[in-house]
Amino acid sequence: MSTDEVRIVKLAGNMEVVPDGSVTTPRGFSAGAIHVGVRSDWDKLDVGLLASEAPCVAAATYTKNRLPGASLVISRQHLSSRRAQAVVANAGCANAATGKRGLDDAIAMAQAAGAKLGTDPHLVVVASTGVIGTYLPMDRISAGIEKISLSPDGGLDFAKAIMTTDTVPKHTAVRGGGWSVGGVVKGVGMIHPNMATMLCFMTTDAAVAGPFLAAALRRAVDVSFNMIDVDSDTSPDDIALVMANGLAGGPAIDEGHPEAEAFVAALTQVAVHLAKAMVADAEGATKVIEARVDGAASQEDARRAAREIVSSLGVKTMVYGKDPNWGRVLSAVGNCGAEVSEEKAAVFVQTPDGGELCMFRDGSPQAYDQAKAKASLMPKEVRFRVDLGLGNASATAWGSDMTEEYVRLNSMYTT
Amino acid sequence: MSTDEVRIVKLAGNMEVVPDGSVTTPRGFSAGAIHVGVRSDWDKLDVGLLASEAPCVAAATYTKNRLPGASLVISRQHLSSRRAQAVVANAGCANAATGKRGLDDAIAMAQAAGAKLGTDPHLVVVASTGVIGTYLPMDRISAGIEKISLSPDGGLDFAKAIMTTDTVPKHTAVRGGGWSVGGVVKGVGMIHPNMATMLCFMTTDAAVAGPFLAAALRRAVDVSFNMIDVDSDTSPDDIALVMANGLAGGPAIDEGHPEAEAFVAALTQVAVHLAKAMVADAEGATKVIEARVDGAASQEDARRAAREIVSSLGVKTMVYGKDPNWGRVLSAVGNCGAEVSEEKAAVFVQTPDGGELCMFRDGSPQAYDQAKAKASLMPKEVRFRVDLGLGNASATAWGSDMTEEYVRLNSMYTT
Repeated sequence: MSTDEVRIVKLAGNMEVVPDGSVTTPRGFSAGAIHVGVRSDWDKLDVGLLASEAPCVAAATYTKNRLPGASLVISRQHLSSRRAQAVVANAGCANAATGKRGLDDAIAMAQAAGAKLGTDPHLVVVASTGVIGTYLPMDRISAGIEKISLSPDGGLDFAKAIMTTDTVPKHTAVRGGGWSVGGVVKGVGMIHPNMATMLCFMTTDAAVAGPFLAAALRRAVDVSFNMIDVDSDTSPDDIALVMANGLAGGPAIDEGHPEAEAFVAALTQVAVHLAKAMVADAEGATKVIEARVDGAASQEDARRAAREIVSSLGVKTMVYGKDPNWGRVLSAVGNCGAEVSEEKAAVFVQTPDGGELCMFRDGSPQAYDQAKAKASLMPKEVRFRVDLGLGNASATAWGSDMTEEYVRLNSMYTT
Repeated sequence: MSTDEVRIVKLAGNMEVVPDGSVTTPRGFSAGAIHVGVRSDWDKLDVGLLASEAPCVAAATYTKNRLPGASLVISRQHLSSRRAQAVVANAGCANAATGKRGLDDAIAMAQAAGAKLGTDPHLVVVASTGVIGTYLPMDRISAGIEKISLSPDGGLDFAKAIMTTDTVPKHTAVRGGGWSVGGVVKGVGMIHPNMATMLCFMTTDAAVAGPFLAAALRRAVDVSFNMIDVDSDTSPDDIALVMANGLAGGPAIDEGHPEAEAFVAALTQVAVHLAKAMVADAEGATKVIEARVDGAASQEDARRAAREIVSSLGVKTMVYGKDPNWGRVLSAVGNCGAEVSEEKAAVFVQTPDGGELCMFRDGSPQAYDQAKAKASLMPKEVRFRVDLGLGNASATAWGSDMTEEYVRLNSMYTT
């Protein structure tokens, strides 16, 4: 599936978005959350538990950071079986840079969740997000996990429990005749395309073959979480997980199964929705920047160029300032390493009426309507398009703008 | 020369820093500047001319941006002879993304400077900095060049004429018994290690062999301009140029010449001084962040890690907020792609008394004095050191902090 197709994700005819859907929309999943005080200055839900009544086939992608957090290290070990039945997650402490004690704490979290659920702790995925270099308050966390009450309506509370500087819970689901796919995500800072760059949990009651589930996840992540940027930073705790409990019955979806592409489309729809929700809620952000690159010589070039545009601080600050300084878009493309020709490239911005304004073409700045250009930067979602004029590859990326508020938030995060 | 040696650049015993030195400190160089109104809203000097009374051996490094500005394209052609006699530069308009007309304008600037000086225009280096995608007002520029008066004291005016959002002119020189090296630089935004990322002009009256001059420039740039970051963006117009007019006489400095290393040290001293001056004057910045990485498995790993630390928005905002959130330093190292081990890495911050506070070691956060850590983030220059514990390679990088003022400046740059 090309990014271009994903941009207008076509769900199978019988699939629809579920209002207020989440990880507990697929049958057999329940969730809950509790406040235990991981941070002394927070009164929000900070530990969440998600469980399936049946063991699941599971697949995950992880941070590329070479100093992964302890919870991620343990989850990776547990997921080597490609099976999982539950997720226990906390906010407020990343359990990263915590050495042997951190690993022990992550194991203890899995054990507490396993004991609560009567499940093998090796089927529990552990996730932590928050400050790096602090230890988890394990007494409070273990006691809290024991007290969590699980419910098929608990997806929203689970989504809230993993929030840090997020301002809204981020969740969605799609449902068809036979099965559904749900997801929650957190992450509004340290977000940059480098595999999964946040906590994302997706669930489905479809029966799915393990290798196909892993391939579907890679395809979905590649056009969603791998195409967004907040601040070019990658956290050590990022994971995107999908669990399929098979309660919808029927033969497992696999290559050649009549619903194989419908499943990939559904998973992609959920992933793209959650990725864009992260960008829309990015720390201090006021706008979503969409960059579509057409005419690239290769798919990798298209992806690089689109990501570089939404990652450039010059572009991010210009969008924040509603300043049509399109030269920064072109300069970002020049920086990304993709094949590019000044004579063949063209830069456009989408106007409020849905049309396009051409700002640069044929090697020259174009005379365009300044007022219309300014108006194009007013909407919550600002869309640039660059046609490289070299080939047929397209890609789309999304980024937040850069604001004084981002700086303020990040200059006083731990203290 | 390792970065470590550069950090405490040892000039040859007979060399000293010249108070208020600049590009006109070496004998035979004169400079001047004029206000022509490249931007209608500026009343500052905006066109500068630097000339040597004798033709020079020259070497340069350029932006890696694949859409270089027109002035840079022309300068690169002119410098293919490895000779130059003058530089003409303007601020306020980058003459980038300007197609054929931009190239014609850059040639016209060289011709105007050549006519003024009675010099072959092919010996003139042209440089432009400012807004991308606008045309130069060539009538005013050509008339202005004609009127510039050159003087051996004109280095400061030349430094002022190339400033855009710079708040102070940036210049230096070192002098010894026989020869001197001077330099000016501009650039406080779109600064990221990728060869030369700004306008930098260096001069010397030493006689230097062409290939040796080019090699010396690469060595100097590698530990100075290639090790700094403001905002991870690279402008299309960046150039670092050195011109040697040989007026000091004597046999040309070359490999094996007794003053070869003294010359490299002097050039490096000038480059490091100018690079740090750029960071100190970075858009909206309040602090210089120095990151030294020791114990890396390779020189490239040490460089990557040091640069990633000073480029991380998480680190930049934390330093601005004087928040000792050292986990972001460690996370940046984990992201840089260098070989790293959580068990072997250690993170330190330099305390105001010149000592060090260890924040992370042996895979665990260290119990340190919070008040002392906070105090370590108060000085204008904040120094982190990471020992990777894997080998013997070291490198040092410098970056600015990230502030609300950077965002404010960059959100309203063109309008």
